[in-house]
Amino acid sequence: MTIKLIGFLISTSTLRVIICLKELGIPYELEPPASFQSLKDKDYIANKHPFGRIPVLFDGDFRINESRAICRYLVSKYQGKYNNTILIPNDVYKAGLVEQFISYESCYYDSPVSQIVSQELLAKKFWGKDPDPEVLKEARKNLNKVLDVYEKLLEGKEYLVGEFSLADIFHCPGTNLAYGIVTHSDLWDNRPNVKNWWNNLCNRDTIKKSFEEYRA
Amino acid sequence: MTIKLIGFLISTSTLRVIICLKELGIPYELEPPASFQSLKDKDYIANKHPFGRIPVLFDGDFRINESRAICRYLVSKYQGKYNNTILIPNDVYKAGLVEQFISYESCYYDSPVSQIVSQELLAKKFWGKDPDPEVLKEARKNLNKVLDVYEKLLEGKEYLVGEFSLADIFHCPGTNLAYGIVTHSDLWDNRPNVKNWWNNLCNRDTIKKSFEEYRA
Repeated sequence: MTIKLIGFLISTSTLRVIICLKELGIPYELEPPASFQSLKDKDYIANKHPFGRIPVLFDGDFRINESRAICRYLVSKYQGKYNNTILIPNDVYKAGLVEQFISYESCYYDSPVSQIVSQELLAKKFWGKDPDPEVLKEARKNLNKVLDVYEKLLEGKEYLVGEFSLADIFHCPGTNLAYGIVTHSDLWDNRPNVKNWWNNLCNRDTIKKSFEEYRA
Repeated sequence: MTIKLIGFLISTSTLRVIICLKELGIPYELEPPASFQSLKDKDYIANKHPFGRIPVLFDGDFRINESRAICRYLVSKYQGKYNNTILIPNDVYKAGLVEQFISYESCYYDSPVSQIVSQELLAKKFWGKDPDPEVLKEARKNLNKVLDVYEKLLEGKEYLVGEFSLADIFHCPGTNLAYGIVTHSDLWDNRPNVKNWWNNLCNRDTIKKSFEEYRA
């Protein structure tokens, strides 16, 4: 039975799951909800996501929501079934280091990246506001500090923990948006190891394909 | 070789790992850093945590930091070794639902709980400020919405996904602090299922013990 993913192509959390599905070679169908408003419908809340969000994945009768949870489920069930890509290694120590970088993303990296994206891309579009230069300055300052650490940790590595992993995927949706803003791509480009890492990700067929669909 | 946990007893993220260690029955030694300032020392950054944080765990020569990553590592390596407590089930579907609730905690629950805690407990202590009533009002409003959903999801359940799991542990440190503020405990107590869930957690020997050490 084909996996059904409920989500929008313009959603970063849907993109996170799409990259994971493509990397593991899992066949799937994307089914966008009727509208953003429909996510708050009683039926959607009761049968799809109790907080009225996307994405939601159906694997036969099994339903799971929340992008990071979905990705972990897909790894547990399907890693190694369709191809040889390993997103969470079986070795407990290697897996621990992947988890460590997943936490760096959610605790340190995501917040300034999201601030840049929301100020530059969402403020005007959704709230009719100009970007707040003070918020942007603070976000850039914080992201500079985080990327200085990444630059050291990425020394001699193609990906965050050496081999490609789920930690890299979790960095993709936000970075794709923020890096696409020409006035902020210097944050990544000015650091050789960080730049190399981001290039390696963008050159993976699955990620390139996912970004193309996302832009569409 | 005994596991060594670098952290402070007054840290919620250290508490998260301590509950996990006690639940899995793993022997460990807690080693507090010299001071909060010492976390920013070159040596600490180089050999303990690249972002200068706690906790850090040493399992023999293997080092891992970030509380959520440490907990996952402990589950992968030690679940079932010292006792029968299961924090992440082997069944992929059950594990998926644990992951789903772990994501609810980090995406919806943690933010308003942390705002209440930082306004009520940290603002005065660390920044010499009174709590901001507007921030508190907004945090309570948001947490009310989240707990309304939890109340439904907890119907007929002792723990978040039925059986006790890592998802419950991840809710403990923040809830312990916020619930301890008498003017906010109504948020949990006014909802029978949520109240029952929190009581079940507080009555577990390991969690009771961990909270006592945390208060000490």
